[in-house]
Amino acid sequence: MLDHIDLAHTISKQEYKARLPDLQMRLYAIERAVQQAGVPVLILFEGWAGTSKIGAISALTRRLDPRGLRVHPITPPRTFEQQYPWLYRFWLKIPSYGQIALFDRSWYREVLAERTHEDSTPEMWRQRCEDIVTFERQLADDGTLIQKFWLHISREEQERRFEELQSDPLTAWQVTDEDRWQNRHYKRVRVAVEDMLTRTDTPHARWIVLPATDRRALHLTIAETIERALDARLDNIANAQEQIHDAQQNGHADNSVPPLSSGMAQLPVPSILNQVNLSYTLEKEEYSKKLKKLQAKLYLLGLEVYRQQRPVVLLFEGWDAAGKGGAIQRITTRLDPRAYVVHTIAAPTGEDRLHHYLYRFWRRLPARGQIGIFDRSWYGRVLVERVEGFARTNEWQRAYAEINEFERDLIDFGMVVCKFWMHISPDEQLRRFEERQTVEYKKWKLTDEDWRNREKWADYEQAADEMLVRTSTPAAPWTIVEAENKRFGRIKVLQTVVQRLEDELGRVEL
Amino acid sequence: MLDHIDLAHTISKQEYKARLPDLQMRLYAIERAVQQAGVPVLILFEGWAGTSKIGAISALTRRLDPRGLRVHPITPPRTFEQQYPWLYRFWLKIPSYGQIALFDRSWYREVLAERTHEDSTPEMWRQRCEDIVTFERQLADDGTLIQKFWLHISREEQERRFEELQSDPLTAWQVTDEDRWQNRHYKRVRVAVEDMLTRTDTPHARWIVLPATDRRALHLTIAETIERALDARLDNIANAQEQIHDAQQNGHADNSVPPLSSGMAQLPVPSILNQVNLSYTLEKEEYSKKLKKLQAKLYLLGLEVYRQQRPVVLLFEGWDAAGKGGAIQRITTRLDPRAYVVHTIAAPTGEDRLHHYLYRFWRRLPARGQIGIFDRSWYGRVLVERVEGFARTNEWQRAYAEINEFERDLIDFGMVVCKFWMHISPDEQLRRFEERQTVEYKKWKLTDEDWRNREKWADYEQAADEMLVRTSTPAAPWTIVEAENKRFGRIKVLQTVVQRLEDELGRVEL
Repeated sequence: MLDHIDLAHTISKQEYKARLPDLQMRLYAIERAVQQAGVPVLILFEGWAGTSKIGAISALTRRLDPRGLRVHPITPPRTFEQQYPWLYRFWLKIPSYGQIALFDRSWYREVLAERTHEDSTPEMWRQRCEDIVTFERQLADDGTLIQKFWLHISREEQERRFEELQSDPLTAWQVTDEDRWQNRHYKRVRVAVEDMLTRTDTPHARWIVLPATDRRALHLTIAETIERALDARLDNIANAQEQIHDAQQNGHADNSVPPLSSGMAQLPVPSILNQVNLSYTLEKEEYSKKLKKLQAKLYLLGLEVYRQQRPVVLLFEGWDAAGKGGAIQRITTRLDPRAYVVHTIAAPTGEDRLHHYLYRFWRRLPARGQIGIFDRSWYGRVLVERVEGFARTNEWQRAYAEINEFERDLIDFGMVVCKFWMHISPDEQLRRFEERQTVEYKKWKLTDEDWRNREKWADYEQAADEMLVRTSTPAAPWTIVEAENKRFGRIKVLQTVVQRLEDELGRVEL
Repeated sequence: MLDHIDLAHTISKQEYKARLPDLQMRLYAIERAVQQAGVPVLILFEGWAGTSKIGAISALTRRLDPRGLRVHPITPPRTFEQQYPWLYRFWLKIPSYGQIALFDRSWYREVLAERTHEDSTPEMWRQRCEDIVTFERQLADDGTLIQKFWLHISREEQERRFEELQSDPLTAWQVTDEDRWQNRHYKRVRVAVEDMLTRTDTPHARWIVLPATDRRALHLTIAETIERALDARLDNIANAQEQIHDAQQNGHADNSVPPLSSGMAQLPVPSILNQVNLSYTLEKEEYSKKLKKLQAKLYLLGLEVYRQQRPVVLLFEGWDAAGKGGAIQRITTRLDPRAYVVHTIAAPTGEDRLHHYLYRFWRRLPARGQIGIFDRSWYGRVLVERVEGFARTNEWQRAYAEINEFERDLIDFGMVVCKFWMHISPDEQLRRFEERQTVEYKKWKLTDEDWRNREKWADYEQAADEMLVRTSTPAAPWTIVEAENKRFGRIKVLQTVVQRLEDELGRVEL
């Protein structure tokens, strides 16, 4: 979930000063409404050392009524706390009905420390993550609104901040040995963090990953996110009460109150795709040379897939006319035709339409030793089905966790999973559409639906952005392919596939 | 979940013949309604070898329209199925919308076989159970109605059936080596089964444990249970549609369809408490002798609890005036007063009332080396809160899983958990109430509420029956104490506590 986050986003001091006071006033009003409605609110801040989580909390609480909230700084467990099951001390700190509890670090701190210092086995790690999911689910089922923020900075930015703090004797103490250790092992910690975020990103307690490079932008986004979530929850309660009232008026008093949704307004989606640099190109000659070499390697790796009996999934999503088909063709050209199957995924029909949306992908999974290539995939659930309204809001929101669970099953089984988002600009898409209209042998590729989808570019972009964040896991990362230049895009796909397969199956020599 | 099941219940042939055809007709009608409503229905049958799961399935399908259903006999995975993740073959068999899929054995077969033959580590076992919970949750979230039956017989009954089958050459082949192995290792398999049932008993896919000694009773109960569940689901859909319709009429078209409840009608609750033999008594002299010895042992075990730094929970539920207080007093008399704390649990007040219902028990957990005694407990959620309507239906239904998760946390931490249900007859309760009214120093014990609760005896009994089944786990079993005779009841409690503590901490010698 940390891939693709834009760390360069900033906000001017003027804008900050213009927007913050108003936001703080609105939060103050909402705080009282939350108290009256008796909603327990749990907001936690985790993130890299040096992101000043307490600064973010202060910006939030400065104007709030302190009687309605409680800040919990979480340190390692004290001796007496070790006398109890590990979640004990967190149960004691859950917000009461109508209270806002803010956690500066949380249960995640302990689990992450265990793992990064290699005190825990993979089984313990998995168990801890499940303990957390259960804990948060129990609270959410009881009506607790949970917001989890991960404050993200780069390794370089972290180092810069440490240096800055250390240069002043008044702040030097803030940088601990542990912090410096984290900076030295940034890459390893990052893998752990990402695994933790995906395992614990559930519909009832979603992670919100925010770039923390610019503090003003960070503080505004946090406040706005919380405002939206609380607002949505309060609306929800009002609607539910109205429905109950209506039901009672109509005579059929229904005992079962409609369960509250998680009160999740739209979460802030980081802009990923509009940051992609589409200016890369590749000359024809270099392209041909590279292509030939990569395809030869791929041929050998295809044999290795069979020899080692590993199943492989290569999955392509992206804009219409972004070159999915072209990339797939370059992959399969030299492969043994028995080695792979290409599945083109359009709207489900027949049996597929009559089952759970994952059914048709379970049916089409590659067996051991096979390569399954998906031209579009299960991600349709959070792309086309979301944008076109074929899936209800709770259905596509739930799907992120379902898809992560699904892919975890595949990976635990030994599958290699590569996921590509083929990216082009709207202008380039238009150019390609028009070309398709005029070139006879390309006409069949263009449908009315393509034109319709094009009109919803912004919606699709938002859906893709959220998908890229929520479903990029260490074991199944997304690769964004800059495909504005077809040659560049194809080579990037092939290079990525070769790299991943060599990592998993061993290097091959030509 | 297998404790306390009454295996002696039978039904006469006449009654069976009188009720079955009518039931089959109703199911036939419901089958068509399910098809029209597009509800996928998944019904699975697991149970001891020799319970004739296919017999139960036949009784069910005999009058159904075969086009609406599909029977899946599950055998060990074939070679090609081993080429895929283990749930693959079950995904391929999920019911389509409007279809009823009946499983003769299921995913549980494979997992259970792995464990009982000790092919799997505890971590693998836990992982498999979680895989199942995830799988079933994904289907339920998609609207699948899931019914899971466990057919239960005793070891002796199983042996009798095998002998009967083997005595006839036409049926002898049905008894496999594997079956005979199961009968020899009945006790060990039972522990595994019980652990599996509790780990996978979730609000969206509850287990229904049925005594299978009498086939007629079994077949009727299965058919009735399924009828009720399908009926409840169809009602649910009708209500939801009506609500949407109403909402649209009222102008505020709500995009979010109210999520369907699990369509769970009341599950059949085995009668446990009315089978309890309340005729046991104990003479005064023997009582005194035993009491003295047990208390002396308990004193030593109390020291051992401290020495080994193990936390202990002793928990008492039961009828008003059933002798909870008296039993607790006999436990604590000789214990070091620093060794234990007694928590009397009435309606929550103050902080406790303002938090999740488990909060007040997390707060009161015994630390390492302590004994926490609970006079009433977290089980109030599924007893008084259920019966008095303080908890909504979905809240108390969810609570079985929450409580099992909670106790699993405690046990994984090393806690010893003993749970007692103190049982008396209504007549005995009346006698004790009247005694309390007349004996001056006992008057304080009797409140108006006691009389009110007494009027709801049947409701409380049903709630207690269901609680005893759903929350009796191998690591935290319920002990039903026949407390009609106070002396007998107290000695049974003390014996059980001493036994459990000796099992966990080692034998003590007087």
